[in-house]
Amino acid sequence: MNQAVAQGLDGVVAASTRLSLVDGEQGRLVLAGYDVEEIAPRASFEEVCFLFWQGRLPANSELDLLKERLARRRALPPAALGILREAARSRAPVMDAVRMAVSTLSLGREEEPGDDALTAVAAIPCIVGSYWRLLNDREPVPALEELGHAAHFLHQVFGEIPSPEQARGLETYLNTVCDHGFNASTFTARVIVSTQSDIISAVTGAVGALKGPLHGGAPGPALDMVLEIGSPDRADAFITAKLSRGERLMGFGHRVYRVRDPRADILAAAAERFYTTAGDREMYQLARAVESTALRLLAEHKPGRRLDTNVEFYTALLLHGLGLPTELFTPAFAVGRMLGWTAHCLEQLKDGRLIRPQSRYVGEAGLRFVTLDQRSVG
Amino acid sequence: MNQAVAQGLDGVVAASTRLSLVDGEQGRLVLAGYDVEEIAPRASFEEVCFLFWQGRLPANSELDLLKERLARRRALPPAALGILREAARSRAPVMDAVRMAVSTLSLGREEEPGDDALTAVAAIPCIVGSYWRLLNDREPVPALEELGHAAHFLHQVFGEIPSPEQARGLETYLNTVCDHGFNASTFTARVIVSTQSDIISAVTGAVGALKGPLHGGAPGPALDMVLEIGSPDRADAFITAKLSRGERLMGFGHRVYRVRDPRADILAAAAERFYTTAGDREMYQLARAVESTALRLLAEHKPGRRLDTNVEFYTALLLHGLGLPTELFTPAFAVGRMLGWTAHCLEQLKDGRLIRPQSRYVGEAGLRFVTLDQRSVG
Repeated sequence: MNQAVAQGLDGVVAASTRLSLVDGEQGRLVLAGYDVEEIAPRASFEEVCFLFWQGRLPANSELDLLKERLARRRALPPAALGILREAARSRAPVMDAVRMAVSTLSLGREEEPGDDALTAVAAIPCIVGSYWRLLNDREPVPALEELGHAAHFLHQVFGEIPSPEQARGLETYLNTVCDHGFNASTFTARVIVSTQSDIISAVTGAVGALKGPLHGGAPGPALDMVLEIGSPDRADAFITAKLSRGERLMGFGHRVYRVRDPRADILAAAAERFYTTAGDREMYQLARAVESTALRLLAEHKPGRRLDTNVEFYTALLLHGLGLPTELFTPAFAVGRMLGWTAHCLEQLKDGRLIRPQSRYVGEAGLRFVTLDQRSVG
Repeated sequence: MNQAVAQGLDGVVAASTRLSLVDGEQGRLVLAGYDVEEIAPRASFEEVCFLFWQGRLPANSELDLLKERLARRRALPPAALGILREAARSRAPVMDAVRMAVSTLSLGREEEPGDDALTAVAAIPCIVGSYWRLLNDREPVPALEELGHAAHFLHQVFGEIPSPEQARGLETYLNTVCDHGFNASTFTARVIVSTQSDIISAVTGAVGALKGPLHGGAPGPALDMVLEIGSPDRADAFITAKLSRGERLMGFGHRVYRVRDPRADILAAAAERFYTTAGDREMYQLARAVESTALRLLAEHKPGRRLDTNVEFYTALLLHGLGLPTELFTPAFAVGRMLGWTAHCLEQLKDGRLIRPQSRYVGEAGLRFVTLDQRSVG
């Protein structure tokens, strides 16, 4: 009873995994054997799916089969579209609508872990895209089986087939964020499925956890600052004022990585590649100006501390360049992270045991029940 | 990196709580200050709601206000009923349908922790009852504001106002199971809300975790054995055969309690009280005969081990007596546990921090990406 409380489970190792290694001291992220910078910019999202589900990269024929199996599971069941229409009528926040629709993915199917994983990954781009269109008074577009996963997500949102540069930009993003150790949403999915519940239940819970502002990985606020600054010559005064007020600069620093977050470089390169061939050059130059000003001023105001540009900053830049509104940043994160959630569920179902920690009781005990007529207002 | 893995978080104290103390060594369960046997058979469910949400029992006027606030939140939003109809058309398992409907409870409302908690507790009897009726080709009945919570649940299922004995029997059950430390579903809810996500998201995840057969508290199998035995004179041969095959007797023993589970006595007394005034006397006598035979044979086959009748056995007896089918045993558990989930969420939002454990990476590292055309089938 007097055991120490591991607040937030900080530093507690809850399970083993073969899916990702987050080494904050070394600034390293390994995804199923590959350093993130080795695989994220080069593999298709479907290749990473195969890697996460099967433990190795696919051969050509295996990849074709997986692509076909995913593509066939893209279209939403009527109940999912129905609930998205209801949600749009009440102007529900996007992540709430995503949670409701993901929860319906068990309808009309037999529950089976492998099929649940395929269905969840295949369908979430349609959920996010359809909801965004409904919320903006446009009809959802039908699922297109011939597009790759990343391109298909953009098609679901915009109703147009994206350029190869746009598709590759998003694909690199989805690969980069597909897994990251036992973050709160992934851990949620593992706890749920540790009872031998099903994967749709688990990823529904994970969507709910990802919604929370403390989850991390939500890049909206980083972009908001860039847009608020608006022009490179205003950056110095704006950031100086913010730092003098003791406010945090969104887009800089990370809780886990003591050195540079390896994902930041990948997304910076992806953003640069994208903006040199497409997108709004002016926006890109503004963001880079804000970044260099911020880094210079942070070094002056907080000497000795490493406060690098983090993954949120470049994510915001890249997703904005692809035309995604900030309301879809967290949902786009869910599209990528869905892969990690499902892979962790499969791993937990295979190797894991019930996750059930203890709590420490700090309340009273031995109170006597007093009937209602003998109680006074407290 | 070489830190020990706390498998299943066994023995790890994840947070402090004022809500319940599970003392498996002493066979004690304290609910917000009161031993479960002190409060569960005597308080109304609404009094326990006030206790869990406010930290003390209500005065008369406070209780009236709470009852009114709960009653006003009973009726389901159209989207929840819509998804239940869709689910019934696909014959979805009850817990899947409950998860889908609970997830829609954020529609048409502003998200607010206190209101979310009230809404989730008030609405789940309608969700379970409406779904059961739809699944059996009957229309849901409208919510009745004048009934107490336990009576209202029975009315939602059966469409008839229950007797006071039936309502009290169910009320004692709901109070008894409303909280139990950091079980997997409660822990799920806390992890989700630890990101500062909302309570509807959290309890949706909790429903998903409760669905899993390893969660515990699901009393269906205990009843199945009694029904399968069918007559007291068959008990000895049936149980002897089962024990000789090395099979576990459902309804006896508990993972946490080394001594008697305190909830078992309460539910045994509630079942006895109920069956002496109502219900199927023959069924009751059969169950008690099975129990005494099982305890005698367990003592012979496993000498030295304490294998008491557990809470599932008496739960099954009580819920069956109230007319609930085994398919509604886990959903009825969710109706009671919803209170604990919401109270833990409120506590976590107030005091808690992000719950984010570590994982231990046991996969490979430093693999080189090989392009698709250079890979062979694995």
